[in-house]
Amino acid sequence: MQLIYWIDLFGVFVFAISGINVGLQRKLDVFGASVIAFATAIGGGTIRDLLLGSTPVGWMKDANYIYAIVLGVVLSLFFRPKVQKLSNTIFLFDTIGLALYSIIGIKKALMYDMSPVVAIMLGTVSAVFGGVLRDVLTNQIPLIFRKEIYAILSILGGGLYFLIVYIYGNETLSMYISMVFIIVLRLVVVKKKWELPKL
Amino acid sequence: MQLIYWIDLFGVFVFAISGINVGLQRKLDVFGASVIAFATAIGGGTIRDLLLGSTPVGWMKDANYIYAIVLGVVLSLFFRPKVQKLSNTIFLFDTIGLALYSIIGIKKALMYDMSPVVAIMLGTVSAVFGGVLRDVLTNQIPLIFRKEIYAILSILGGGLYFLIVYIYGNETLSMYISMVFIIVLRLVVVKKKWELPKL
Amino acid sequence: MQLIYWIDLFGVFVFAISGINVGLQRKLDVFGASVIAFATAIGGGTIRDLLLGSTPVGWMKDANYIYAIVLGVVLSLFFRPKVQKLSNTIFLFDTIGLALYSIIGIKKALMYDMSPVVAIMLGTVSAVFGGVLRDVLTNQIPLIFRKEIYAILSILGGGLYFLIVYIYGNETLSMYISMVFIIVLRLVVVKKKWELPKL
Repeated sequence: MQLIYWIDLFGVFVFAISGINVGLQRKLDVFGASVIAFATAIGGGTIRDLLLGSTPVGWMKDANYIYAIVLGVVLSLFFRPKVQKLSNTIFLFDTIGLALYSIIGIKKALMYDMSPVVAIMLGTVSAVFGGVLRDVLTNQIPLIFRKEIYAILSILGGGLYFLIVYIYGNETLSMYISMVFIIVLRLVVVKKKWELPKL
Repeated sequence: MQLIYWIDLFGVFVFAISGINVGLQRKLDVFGASVIAFATAIGGGTIRDLLLGSTPVGWMKDANYIYAIVLGVVLSLFFRPKVQKLSNTIFLFDTIGLALYSIIGIKKALMYDMSPVVAIMLGTVSAVFGGVLRDVLTNQIPLIFRKEIYAILSILGGGLYFLIVYIYGNETLSMYISMVFIIVLRLVVVKKKWELPKL
Repeated sequence: MQLIYWIDLFGVFVFAISGINVGLQRKLDVFGASVIAFATAIGGGTIRDLLLGSTPVGWMKDANYIYAIVLGVVLSLFFRPKVQKLSNTIFLFDTIGLALYSIIGIKKALMYDMSPVVAIMLGTVSAVFGGVLRDVLTNQIPLIFRKEIYAILSILGGGLYFLIVYIYGNETLSMYISMVFIIVLRLVVVKKKWELPKL
């Protein structure tokens, strides 16, 4: 799990960069944008932990998460024009973060004896509610409620996770396959500009 | 309490229908509207449980709540024009939900040794904060802060509950009388279009 | 700590007055404005307690907090024109509240074995997230994200607290000095109209 820990820290770092850029675009000052960076990076995991009753919540017990966010914030502020040119790189890591948070959320929910359906929901909450919090705090209707098929990928990947565990009984294999599935599917979805219908 | 369990599930189902209709009206996609349905249905009880420290929160431990919401969402999507014609029926169940959630919230708070004042507040939180969450997530000032006398009924009904328990010492009787009181009073209030003053 | 308890109650009272005035300015009815008063007064401490897992959260276990809020609400409603003339007095107590909540938040976080960095963050959350919640519930971008240097003072004061404890090893001394530091610095900041840069 050592590898996952580092990817997880990297996910927090990337979500913080994404958050501070949104904050600055929306005319917040440096402090406000930094709060948005924090909320984007740890919001999903925090809501998951609160719902499970896993407190103090995760990032409060391991300073590396805070350092990763601060690093993302500081780098974004100092190299702002360059960070914006890296949008492809950020998009890639954002996608990795989506996959990783979805599956880590499921694992954590299972540690608390949640059913598969609740576990998939909590995986999705972990992956997308940082962005929801970011949008609520900047007074916008959350992006994933309107345009992005983002959250559906998390749900499908979560379903695949349990399917593979059910068929092959191998949790580690299932974890990696469903993560790769989410990443590939997101790349396809964005390429093809698939959207959900509005009624 | 078997009857109350079924009414409770029905309340969740009705609140989900109310939530998805609001979500679709506000131009969300199907996923976004479904999240609003969930938030409306279980938001109030979730906030109550978090404040009390009753975690994992209620709906995560009983899949029937999730099924009730999914059923409400699916039926709304398939029979959308018909559901909208049922607005009187929905209004009635919404009113039953208000009464039920208020009193169930009080009961749960008392299990955690809260004082009557805090219990009444938590009953009201259970009954109305699903709607508050719905409005915040769709970027509106919560309806109950502006127009609806909704929450006051929950508070009055909660006060009546403790009054009857104090006088007659009968919790079951008190529960039913205060629920009927909330339902009847809401029908009168909506009929008469009573509002709270703005200063 | 008896003195701090009374100042704390006074802080809740003052934040409730500030909250109800904002609510009424934003065209809410009396109930809505009262909810905003509650959210402003106890929001920050509630989020701190939830993150720490200190539940039922503080104000639910001591009715005096609720009485202090209700008193603030009732006085504001009855003496509204006069309360608005007291804006200098309210500003002063709001500043005292900022200082007090920051340091009380740190103390509480340390009781839960949080690191100094997390403790400073939770002190700031205690001091400013009541206002954030007030602004989110009234559908505005939180004031402290845009204009007010408010939160930075809480962070600086928290840093000073740990610096003095580190050098002199005296927690009580440190507590009072860092509170006075926050109060004086805020008066200077508002006088000089210092703001954070937007990038």
